[in-house]
Amino acid sequence: MKIEDYLKEKKQLVDQALDQYLPGEDQYPQSIHRAMRYSVLGDGKRIRPILALASCEACGGKLEEILPVACGIEMIHAYSLIHDDLPALDNDDFRRDRPSCHKQFGEATAILAGDALLTLGMRLFGKPSDSEVCRAVLEVMAHGAGTDGMIGGQVIDLEVKPADRDQPTLEYIHTRKTGALIAASVKAGAVVAGADDGSVEKLTRFGECIGLVFQIVDDILDNEDYAVLFGPAKARQEARHLTDKAKEQIAFLGERGEVLTEIADMLVSRLK
Amino acid sequence: MKIEDYLKEKKQLVDQALDQYLPGEDQYPQSIHRAMRYSVLGDGKRIRPILALASCEACGGKLEEILPVACGIEMIHAYSLIHDDLPALDNDDFRRDRPSCHKQFGEATAILAGDALLTLGMRLFGKPSDSEVCRAVLEVMAHGAGTDGMIGGQVIDLEVKPADRDQPTLEYIHTRKTGALIAASVKAGAVVAGADDGSVEKLTRFGECIGLVFQIVDDILDNEDYAVLFGPAKARQEARHLTDKAKEQIAFLGERGEVLTEIADMLVSRLK
Repeated sequence: MKIEDYLKEKKQLVDQALDQYLPGEDQYPQSIHRAMRYSVLGDGKRIRPILALASCEACGGKLEEILPVACGIEMIHAYSLIHDDLPALDNDDFRRDRPSCHKQFGEATAILAGDALLTLGMRLFGKPSDSEVCRAVLEVMAHGAGTDGMIGGQVIDLEVKPADRDQPTLEYIHTRKTGALIAASVKAGAVVAGADDGSVEKLTRFGECIGLVFQIVDDILDNEDYAVLFGPAKARQEARHLTDKAKEQIAFLGERGEVLTEIADMLVSRLK
Repeated sequence: MKIEDYLKEKKQLVDQALDQYLPGEDQYPQSIHRAMRYSVLGDGKRIRPILALASCEACGGKLEEILPVACGIEMIHAYSLIHDDLPALDNDDFRRDRPSCHKQFGEATAILAGDALLTLGMRLFGKPSDSEVCRAVLEVMAHGAGTDGMIGGQVIDLEVKPADRDQPTLEYIHTRKTGALIAASVKAGAVVAGADDGSVEKLTRFGECIGLVFQIVDDILDNEDYAVLFGPAKARQEARHLTDKAKEQIAFLGERGEVLTEIADMLVSRLK
């Protein structure tokens, strides 16, 4: 199967499941459910849930076990975007070519819709059939989404002006703001598959590397942070180096790692 | 032991554990950890965590098993207050006689501190030694804190003006906004103790009743909602009736239910 077809198929699967797990628009109180659905079901590549699915499948796990977890991950991603867009944070009126959640539904509803998506996302981590797996996934995701992960990255991204960012600060933001949730998604997939500790470790490193690539490529395309500090040439080199490093980590998977390898190549190929 | 001594002892226990579970003020990024600690460790009766502890003990469970869960509950309560106080919601500058979180640390930090407390709170539900218990607690708390629970109550409280509240609307707000988290706290205690389904059910009813009492008493003292719609005399009568109903639910516990009974009496005694 070509990677484009794989991504399309899995995106459809995730979108269907998200539609099922999200409360219906007719469910009371309708306003918040509408806001939640608006923000989650809009356009989106579903890269985090697809990584969780691919990682789980690569480790021999079952799709029906990882699917609710993958949906929880996408809800947490969606909540972080809603809160990030708020006037007190990035103050973005648009998200994916549509009004951002607070522009569409008002600030109060947006704040609560974000809270509700985080709550529901966490709740879905209790869905896998093995409760030890649920506990492990909860720990992985709460760590990745918390103040040593995604939220920590957001805090420093808000507090330190771009001009004041030295390399350690930049690395902190990069490994946390987007990287932590991406790495946690890959790790959660391996955990749900019941992979041994060594494999979970390697897949987590893979996730960390491609999470960084994701951010560096964004910076190069937007001429921000990483591209500014190191120059675009060195930034490109670093993105390619990290992609190679990511692929090395999962070499042990052999053919089963093909999809993850292609996703890694795809992320860096945005630079072309 | 007198109930006042029990409450004091347990509050101390919870406060110590909260201090342990919250990241230190010197931990990077310091700003968010300071805001989290400020909002959680300030004054507070710790009524929800103490209810979880008391319910767990009444069902023969161990304190060390419920303690992290109780702390998670208090963090979720604290997050809901931080977000509730925001300018876009209730716009309260003060909370427990101190500047509210956003007045002290700024709106962006307050939003993220709330998010971080919800995330860490959920993470603590993975701490009990039996992973089936963790899964059950996660479900109970995420349900109680979500759009069919606490958040749902907040949404309707924001959307429907006091003057427009009929009885069904009021009941919805009352059973959700404060009631759902209180009921879930009592339920979580029974679940952690490994109580049978029948006992969990009865303790949940107890929690629902006292959660409502808590809100009705607040309304009477502040002359709001319930007191306005039914008049203070009928509201008082209802609070006493619900307290009796709550105590009936846990009659089966015999002597072991004494602390919960006294807490129920204490909540309604604020009316004196």
